[in-house]
Amino acid sequence: MNIRFTNARIVTMDGDVTCFEGELWTKDDIISYVGKAVLDSSIQGSDDRFDRVIDCAGNVLMPSFKDAHTHSAMTGMRSYADDMPLWEWLSTKIFPLEAKLTADDMYAFTQLAALEYVSGGITAVFDMYMNPERVADALNEMGIRYVGCCDINKFGPSLEEVERRFKVLNRNDGFSSYFMGFHAEYTCTKELLASLSELAHKYESPVFTHNSETKKEVEECIERHGMTPTQLFESLDMFRFGGGGYHCVYMSDEDIDIFKKHDLTVVTNPGSNTKLASGIAPISRYLDEGINVAIGTDGPSSNNCLDMFREMFLVTGLAKLSDMNAAAVVPNEVLKMATVNGSRCMKLSDCDVLAEGKKADLIMIDMHQPNMQPINNITDNIVYSGSKTNIRMTMCNGKILFEDGQYDSSVDPEKIYETANALMDKYRE
Amino acid sequence: MNIRFTNARIVTMDGDVTCFEGELWTKDDIISYVGKAVLDSSIQGSDDRFDRVIDCAGNVLMPSFKDAHTHSAMTGMRSYADDMPLWEWLSTKIFPLEAKLTADDMYAFTQLAALEYVSGGITAVFDMYMNPERVADALNEMGIRYVGCCDINKFGPSLEEVERRFKVLNRNDGFSSYFMGFHAEYTCTKELLASLSELAHKYESPVFTHNSETKKEVEECIERHGMTPTQLFESLDMFRFGGGGYHCVYMSDEDIDIFKKHDLTVVTNPGSNTKLASGIAPISRYLDEGINVAIGTDGPSSNNCLDMFREMFLVTGLAKLSDMNAAAVVPNEVLKMATVNGSRCMKLSDCDVLAEGKKADLIMIDMHQPNMQPINNITDNIVYSGSKTNIRMTMCNGKILFEDGQYDSSVDPEKIYETANALMDKYRE
Repeated sequence: MNIRFTNARIVTMDGDVTCFEGELWTKDDIISYVGKAVLDSSIQGSDDRFDRVIDCAGNVLMPSFKDAHTHSAMTGMRSYADDMPLWEWLSTKIFPLEAKLTADDMYAFTQLAALEYVSGGITAVFDMYMNPERVADALNEMGIRYVGCCDINKFGPSLEEVERRFKVLNRNDGFSSYFMGFHAEYTCTKELLASLSELAHKYESPVFTHNSETKKEVEECIERHGMTPTQLFESLDMFRFGGGGYHCVYMSDEDIDIFKKHDLTVVTNPGSNTKLASGIAPISRYLDEGINVAIGTDGPSSNNCLDMFREMFLVTGLAKLSDMNAAAVVPNEVLKMATVNGSRCMKLSDCDVLAEGKKADLIMIDMHQPNMQPINNITDNIVYSGSKTNIRMTMCNGKILFEDGQYDSSVDPEKIYETANALMDKYRE
Repeated sequence: MNIRFTNARIVTMDGDVTCFEGELWTKDDIISYVGKAVLDSSIQGSDDRFDRVIDCAGNVLMPSFKDAHTHSAMTGMRSYADDMPLWEWLSTKIFPLEAKLTADDMYAFTQLAALEYVSGGITAVFDMYMNPERVADALNEMGIRYVGCCDINKFGPSLEEVERRFKVLNRNDGFSSYFMGFHAEYTCTKELLASLSELAHKYESPVFTHNSETKKEVEECIERHGMTPTQLFESLDMFRFGGGGYHCVYMSDEDIDIFKKHDLTVVTNPGSNTKLASGIAPISRYLDEGINVAIGTDGPSSNNCLDMFREMFLVTGLAKLSDMNAAAVVPNEVLKMATVNGSRCMKLSDCDVLAEGKKADLIMIDMHQPNMQPINNITDNIVYSGSKTNIRMTMCNGKILFEDGQYDSSVDPEKIYETANALMDKYRE
């Protein structure tokens, strides 16, 4: 489908974060034009090449959000176990319930997550969970991109299975890719980590993991191995082909140097770190050091929602609080984290910005709502007062997945809710 | 209009926070029934007494939000001056612009705020600003309740004007009331505060003010007066008829004792305290001490939005972070703060909960959205994953003000946006 978006305010995220009035055209899956209005609609035939002309009426077009760390299938456990710290939450509530879940359950819960992603402007997710092929299916069927991260730990899967997944899920179709990774230092033996590192070398894969999420995690790693998690991973040559860490709340100077040396990404998860009382990541420091910072929602059992607007406000807000500096981490930097920086760490370089030839992965932000008015500063409005209510349209790969509150006609949200509830009615104790 | 809401999940907020399946009827401005379904719609004539029957389809009915501290007319300055600490923001950007604003401007900006309130489920606001009569007009015309707080400071208004406002705005119609108050210690002389205290005694009014919002404010007050703001106000017998403080981030043990002694309310404003890097209020401590805690958005220039869902997540989230305790300030307590505790401090005792004979001030929370599914725990869902997108309907005094994304037909949002933009185009430098 070829679409012409007219009368838009456009934030391309290509270079400096600025906004101009213009239009954007798509040709199938690709952005074929973005710039000032050059077609005069009043001239007969000027719109003939388009299947549809959408008048944006001053609404904003910008790249869609990239959720750089999540566990989509954990939607089932939303509000299932709240008000508990990380380890107690994992060991007494989450791990026991996860042990009961089937691959079909994962698929059903990921369908639910996919609804939340597309209605919230997210078109690519960096997911770590069991049964990744079923997770990828559910996301791809909803029309969004899956980037998987291996979650190996001492309970499984086998290294052979990891290799199999790596081959099957790296599909080179732009909709499914897979990186090496592991759950966390505290759920892996050193031997397992060494084997995983070898596998990453064999396939030249970046490696991601939960890293230094809590103070306890870092302290216990030092006790076990005489070094921080990041130093341990470095000692195993884990990051020869890049990668990064999820959370990164408690990082030493040496850890930060290792991130710089290998050009690793910090994926920050402020909603989850807040709700689990894990702490506040030093985002200003990371920016000062030139580290790539992306944003993830984490899973909906610890957050509890998949909402990049909440995360964006928290990234800047928590930095301001912990630095005691109201100027810390300005909105334009936060917008980069939620879009292009996420693309970069997920190796989605063809759908990162609005530019000719790029994949058409974009959202329309509704400015015709009171929280976006008046328009003193558009990007400040988006980061400081934006909300999911402002997602007027979500497009991935040139296809509109959500528009004016409606999903694609092939999607049946009520059936997805019903299935998720029936499953949890069965599993909840 | 008499409305029957059927098939609802109902959270009355009357006593313990629980949820049951049932229905709610309104008769004009009043809730005439709330409880289990007792009418059989299939029997002919059973719905005759109602003008409308609304099938809630499992959605939640609960009391509307009460925004217990705001400066509605500051919508004009949304995203106008971001990334600055409180005093610099006030003195270099806000005060100079406010000096240019007319009463009509205040009215126009408050209309914009009113759109945001009703679309976000807020039906009563505790507002402190200049030109309060025009602010009250704009809110009342949108159908919501105004509770004003005097903002006297050394630049105005006169005590005579305060008395006049007090008489005019205390209308006893449930839609406009006015309390004594002052801007803050740091903008008032001790003599002015003493006079205001006398006036509060004369009219037996509670007194509210910005109190201990920043560390600097408290330190400078101690330097000036040899005591904290709260102690200074107490020494002037300011709280003989109750009241409370906005923000209350930096409070001593003695301050807290004063709040307990006079049964004062802490109105917490976590969004604003975060964005201005003011600090985190000790909410767990206040709850432990039995202090009434309500929630305010503060003005949209320091927040930057009027969104009780964001505030609710921040109240519990920031408490968890500052206490380093994931169990701190549980969702049911937060829901009380956002509803009944706000009503209590605003003396709106007839529209606080869902019960027979109370005013029909209520909202419908849309559970048919992915962020509310599955339904493991409804109140946890609302506080931890709720968003303005979930406000399906807002009713105040028995009148539906917002439903399925639409305002009352008498309201023209585009005209309100246009006016606000035209004003700021004129005033912005």
